[in-house]
Amino acid sequence: MSEAKENVVEVLASLMEDYAWAIDRDELEQWPNFFEEQCLYKITTADNEEQGYPFGVLYADSRGMLADRVKSLREANIYEGQRYRHVVGRPKVFSSDGAVVSAETSFLVVRTMRTGEMLLFATGVYRDVVSFRGPKALFVERVVVCDSSRIDTLLALPL
Amino acid sequence: MSEAKENVVEVLASLMEDYAWAIDRDELEQWPNFFEEQCLYKITTADNEEQGYPFGVLYADSRGMLADRVKSLREANIYEGQRYRHVVGRPKVFSSDGAVVSAETSFLVVRTMRTGEMLLFATGVYRDVVSFRGPKALFVERVVVCDSSRIDTLLALPL
Amino acid sequence: MSEAKENVVEVLASLMEDYAWAIDRDELEQWPNFFEEQCLYKITTADNEEQGYPFGVLYADSRGMLADRVKSLREANIYEGQRYRHVVGRPKVFSSDGAVVSAETSFLVVRTMRTGEMLLFATGVYRDVVSFRGPKALFVERVVVCDSSRIDTLLALPL
Repeated sequence: MSEAKENVVEVLASLMEDYAWAIDRDELEQWPNFFEEQCLYKITTADNEEQGYPFGVLYADSRGMLADRVKSLREANIYEGQRYRHVVGRPKVFSSDGAVVSAETSFLVVRTMRTGEMLLFATGVYRDVVSFRGPKALFVERVVVCDSSRIDTLLALPL
Repeated sequence: MSEAKENVVEVLASLMEDYAWAIDRDELEQWPNFFEEQCLYKITTADNEEQGYPFGVLYADSRGMLADRVKSLREANIYEGQRYRHVVGRPKVFSSDGAVVSAETSFLVVRTMRTGEMLLFATGVYRDVVSFRGPKALFVERVVVCDSSRIDTLLALPL
Repeated sequence: MSEAKENVVEVLASLMEDYAWAIDRDELEQWPNFFEEQCLYKITTADNEEQGYPFGVLYADSRGMLADRVKSLREANIYEGQRYRHVVGRPKVFSSDGAVVSAETSFLVVRTMRTGEMLLFATGVYRDVVSFRGPKALFVERVVVCDSSRIDTLLALPL
């Protein structure tokens, strides 16, 4: 592997971990800051993707929409009763022109309720377009493709 | 850690991810291409290994046998109703002479049925011998040691 | 990312994997050797931490106490009937002065009983202080913060 490519993988791995960290630590307000101002965030399913359905479970196309989502979640207190724990794989780079990188990363999320109950909540893949133009790597697109088609309405929480 | 060893770990980590990717994306036909022409692929259990039983759940000693296995799986349509998601750990190198590397890597596999049901399917360790002789790192041996002795017949699918 | 920081992450990632390995392979006697002579090892829960309760489920402040724990586990044969499988994330470094590093790492543990039954046993985060002073990186502190407050007494086994 070339040194440059290795470095891209390292930066992406660090970004994936920081992103998961913000959610798992309930620092939701940080979540929109991982995205560019104009962006695409979508949660969908592998079945949906295969059948070419454009719609997903959750859709946002700006950092502002993501911030609104966080605000709603806080107001509804949905987040209070649970914790997430992400485990993410090693990013796989598909294309890179230096400024913009396309990559995919496997993920697994466990949800723990305040009662102590643990649940294997979601597995799937992040399909990302990441900008390396600024001082910090940011998501231009993050499409979360869940393996399971049975989606809990709680999936409205960020993955 | 020396730079050379770090690089071996990087190449192995990339190989592990690519291998898992081929299976998780249902690109099964790619699976035999991760192995050398003459190779060993075996699925077994930790109990079997401890008791020194040589036989496993699945055994193949050539790329051709692996290709045959893929063909059977396709004909039986076993793969249609499910998806796999691998999460693999960081490879641990036990020996390396530059050309051939022995390493072990933890894994966890979640199976998702088309009905949406998710199951923690298997955990264990890959015991690998990898050749670095050619332009691409290839498995000379891949022994999949499952932690659980209760093995689903569906384990006939590659792990 | 600077080269120095990347190297710290690499050494930490290797330490995390070796630690998990010793437990997952039932090489429990190696476990105390990952710690400094005077150390802190504690298992606690996220709820405990948030409410500022100082006590945890398990507490040890020297390598000798950890060795005693291993001895008790062996005598009670608690370990015989089960296996662990750790999957750990990428370490996140919070501070480093070259000699001592503070880092956190997500983890997930699956427990497999000899009957073959698999259980998602624990998820959480390792809060570590690691010394780089000696020839080998060692834990000065390892606080295991479990996401779930429902803790099995079997948690007396190392995590």
